Amino acid sequence: MSAGPIRFYFDFASPYAYFAAAGIDALGAEFGRKVEWRPVLLWAVFKAHGIAAPMDVPAKHAYFVRDMRRSAAFLGLPYVHPARLPLSSHLAARLFHAVAEEEPERAVRLARRVLAAFFAEAVDISDETAMLRLAGEVGIGPERATQAMKGPWGRALLEGAVADAIADGVVGSPYFLVDGEGFFGADRLPQLRWFLSEGRG
Amino acid sequence: MSAGPIRFYFDFASPYAYFAAAGIDALGAEFGRKVEWRPVLLWAVFKAHGIAAPMDVPAKHAYFVRDMRRSAAFLGLPYVHPARLPLSSHLAARLFHAVAEEEPERAVRLARRVLAAFFAEAVDISDETAMLRLAGEVGIGPERATQAMKGPWGRALLEGAVADAIADGVVGSPYFLVDGEGFFGADRLPQLRWFLSEGRG
Repeated sequence: MSAGPIRFYFDFASPYAYFAAAGIDALGAEFGRKVEWRPVLLWAVFKAHGIAAPMDVPAKHAYFVRDMRRSAAFLGLPYVHPARLPLSSHLAARLFHAVAEEEPERAVRLARRVLAAFFAEAVDISDETAMLRLAGEVGIGPERATQAMKGPWGRALLEGAVADAIADGVVGSPYFLVDGEGFFGADRLPQLRWFLSEGRG
Repeated sequence: MSAGPIRFYFDFASPYAYFAAAGIDALGAEFGRKVEWRPVLLWAVFKAHGIAAPMDVPAKHAYFVRDMRRSAAFLGLPYVHPARLPLSSHLAARLFHAVAEEEPERAVRLARRVLAAFFAEAVDISDETAMLRLAGEVGIGPERATQAMKGPWGRALLEGAVADAIADGVVGSPYFLVDGEGFFGADRLPQLRWFLSEGRG
């Protein structure tokens, strides 16, 4: 029996997803687990579960902006706090899912490029022109990208991913699901590693 | 100039406080920082900030109960998930603050005893008789303990601690404040260590 995958739920507008993305593929490779990248719209997941978005609560907003900058420094990752956060990541998420259907590896390259652009280069990923440029950088032409971002297919695939996230009990970004066990937060990676190495998976 | 203290805000009914308590005094000693234990009532802090208690949201409740048991195993700590959680920890918190005014070290011994009893021995710390027994175990007589838990002094001291927590931007338990920098969560201890060792404090 081969080991099951690590499903990596995240929102492209989540700094903690960017932090976790830096390490998750290496972790999967170490334990022979495929990593399934699954971008979702966190606001839609929150709405379904009746969870208030942390960034909408002033005391939490103040804390988390500070924690995001500090966590990037702690992890040694380049970080420029986005001018707008939260922000809707639906263009990036639709594009990802449409590409992933045909070329999963290219989709992951796109995801890494989008996270780096948004969190280290001050690119506005809710802007269609900016997204077309990022798509081009990983070999996705403008016609294909536009179709994926605006057409019914990308939308339907993203809706499916959001429904899966709700069913899988996702409570925030990132959220890892492996062998039925959920791990919420970039700070759960050490515990996920322990879980995999102790053979509890 | 001597290094400032680490203020350790927590709620006696928080498993993550129990997890953090296992390591915080050693961390303080390592960096020559006094640790100021400050139990509060998290529900009162949440109310002031307009934060919904995580355990009141079904999807989060389901996740966190699982995460609490797993985190204890990950950390190698004995853990018996309390029969009732959340639960009001006002008796323990009032007793702590009243004792801390006169005997801070005894108060910390009490705090450790209460956390262990609640999270590893299935003791109901909202029960006055149980609290009197725990108080006795660390040398606090029944008259003194009753006075602290039911009288105006313990109540006023706890109200002051809650007001401080609100002013200090506490958003959950545990929350560490050192040199004006806040760290939320038992999983931020590695980052707190990094902060202290890099001399950023």
